[in-house]
Amino acid sequence: MMKALVFQNAGNFALKSIPKPQLLTATDAIVKIISTTICGTDLHILKGDVPESIPCNGKCNPRNILGAQGLVLGHEGIAVIESVGSQVSDVKVGDKVIISCITSCGNCYYCSKNLQSHCMNGGGWILGHEIDGTQAEYVRIPFADHSLYKVPAGVSNDKALLMLSDVLPTGNEVGSINGNIKPGDVVAIIGSGPVGIAVLVTCRKFKPKAVIMIDLDDQRLKVAQEKFRADYTLNSKDPAEMEKNLTKLCSELTNGISKGVDVAVECVGAPATFEICENMINPGGRIANVGVHGSWVKLALEKLWIRNIQITTGLVNAYTTDKLLAEVVNGHLNPKELVTHEFKLEDIEKAYNLFANASKNKVIKTFITA
Amino acid sequence: MMKALVFQNAGNFALKSIPKPQLLTATDAIVKIISTTICGTDLHILKGDVPESIPCNGKCNPRNILGAQGLVLGHEGIAVIESVGSQVSDVKVGDKVIISCITSCGNCYYCSKNLQSHCMNGGGWILGHEIDGTQAEYVRIPFADHSLYKVPAGVSNDKALLMLSDVLPTGNEVGSINGNIKPGDVVAIIGSGPVGIAVLVTCRKFKPKAVIMIDLDDQRLKVAQEKFRADYTLNSKDPAEMEKNLTKLCSELTNGISKGVDVAVECVGAPATFEICENMINPGGRIANVGVHGSWVKLALEKLWIRNIQITTGLVNAYTTDKLLAEVVNGHLNPKELVTHEFKLEDIEKAYNLFANASKNKVIKTFITA
Repeated sequence: MMKALVFQNAGNFALKSIPKPQLLTATDAIVKIISTTICGTDLHILKGDVPESIPCNGKCNPRNILGAQGLVLGHEGIAVIESVGSQVSDVKVGDKVIISCITSCGNCYYCSKNLQSHCMNGGGWILGHEIDGTQAEYVRIPFADHSLYKVPAGVSNDKALLMLSDVLPTGNEVGSINGNIKPGDVVAIIGSGPVGIAVLVTCRKFKPKAVIMIDLDDQRLKVAQEKFRADYTLNSKDPAEMEKNLTKLCSELTNGISKGVDVAVECVGAPATFEICENMINPGGRIANVGVHGSWVKLALEKLWIRNIQITTGLVNAYTTDKLLAEVVNGHLNPKELVTHEFKLEDIEKAYNLFANASKNKVIKTFITA
Repeated sequence: MMKALVFQNAGNFALKSIPKPQLLTATDAIVKIISTTICGTDLHILKGDVPESIPCNGKCNPRNILGAQGLVLGHEGIAVIESVGSQVSDVKVGDKVIISCITSCGNCYYCSKNLQSHCMNGGGWILGHEIDGTQAEYVRIPFADHSLYKVPAGVSNDKALLMLSDVLPTGNEVGSINGNIKPGDVVAIIGSGPVGIAVLVTCRKFKPKAVIMIDLDDQRLKVAQEKFRADYTLNSKDPAEMEKNLTKLCSELTNGISKGVDVAVECVGAPATFEICENMINPGGRIANVGVHGSWVKLALEKLWIRNIQITTGLVNAYTTDKLLAEVVNGHLNPKELVTHEFKLEDIEKAYNLFANASKNKVIKTFITA
């Protein structure tokens, strides 16, 4: 038996004792969790907003094989390999690994196009979503060779390593790379939460002229500026006032050439913040949507058709996780400051309570040790 | 004096005798029109939908220097150079040239980024929009060195050459290139008018697996298939039926891998057709918007945030006009079949009447000789 945070249905979740997972196929690994964390998506699942996460034992979703016990949440973690199936060759028992939030077979049509989040063989974002996840002492990882990243011997910066499961590759791929940030660009990041900050730290290698963080919360903006070197911050409580200040700032930064930004990265997931991006984008600019949206947004094509802009959307594919791991190992990237609070797994319900009001409680990411 | 099609205000236009244009600056050229044509945008102007085209003599739009006589319409044409300003060096009197629909200074911030349609020195789409255009015997072309393309000696395929003013570069840049069409892609083009067909003919060099034309008009679909080698055509009168047929076709084309298209090119400019694109796009796919939109559209981010798609918009920048000209000259591209009807300039009002019901009258492009 093991401890795990189990979700049953809307509002019903608890730390429980449940059976340890077993190898089910030859490409599986069982890993013992060192640390895990909570993501905003977990809160959506808890509210009952994610139908495929409500246990139905395959009746509602063929990929959902959860029994009556419910779903173990969590898609982030670092761990040690406990056992592997006969076809697992790239990781071995005793290896310390990063668990990718994206499970991928590595061989299908979409995996071969670096669209692993659309894996056709049952991969994608499944951990803590369609199969039991990482907020537990042990987890079964399908397609272990493609879904785990071995940590080089001697690397012990666990807080930084944990950020490689999801937030850093999400910020890098869906924000910085999709936004096609180029040297000299003025970049705005809307939403100074964990993923917004992940965009901030991963975009520096593309040499933007300035990165402007925008949020409703002065405390989060202060963290972005003081701990993560945001060049400018703007509070968007009053959107009209913010847009006025942004126009002035962009004009100063470009000697009057432009009144908006070259790249806007949406890290909130709301119509209002997406529309802020539409309003601020320069001709030839890019809007990279990272936020998880629950409703449609108004796309002002009557203004934008002529402006030569690009909009991208995406779930992380984790095709840059190995490169980001190398940057963490060589010290070019140190995301450990994203961790603001530490817990033991037995106190994970307290961690959820704190994280449910992350902004008020000054939480960015938690570090939960098993 | 010369003949010109002059727009005064909504519904009020006529072929008139007006003064010939004069050189105004050292970078201008005056050209004598060989042939011109009508674009769907001209019809929008005629309806009064384009405020900056209504003569106000600089009072409403600082770039509008039109007097009481009204605006000469037209932004497409082939011509012979009549006179040049002292700083014009790349074209000379007597040269046969293609007039680009985009005028560009060639030196500003946006021109240097191949965003000539956003030229900061008074260029962009100005001909027949903010200054007198090409539906006349003579036209003044600002920034002549960057806004005219010299036709090599001996090339007399005038119908094909005329298509290089606007439709071919628009289809190529805003459709085929922005859509990032790759070998093996399944491509759908929504709207089988002149620009849709320009996408069809310019996208072949990127080696798509199949190109599917979608339109409400069976006649236009027949033209696309018989004259321009569309691989498949679908009528969208019943959108649900069309989507069902498209799903079946895409599944057959990809051995069951995908149910949609890799690239959807919107060449209509309506919310309904943009939403068709949203519905049909594969994970990792691209929607290239070419249509001119008059209202906002519903962007289904609650479904699309996770699908790793890209949406682009744009006015043509004409940065590929020289390459397309080379393809016309060497015979790789022969768009002359886009021309369905010929007129003399003195009959241009008849041409407008016909073009106003282009679909019913089986018009794609007109060829109007001065």
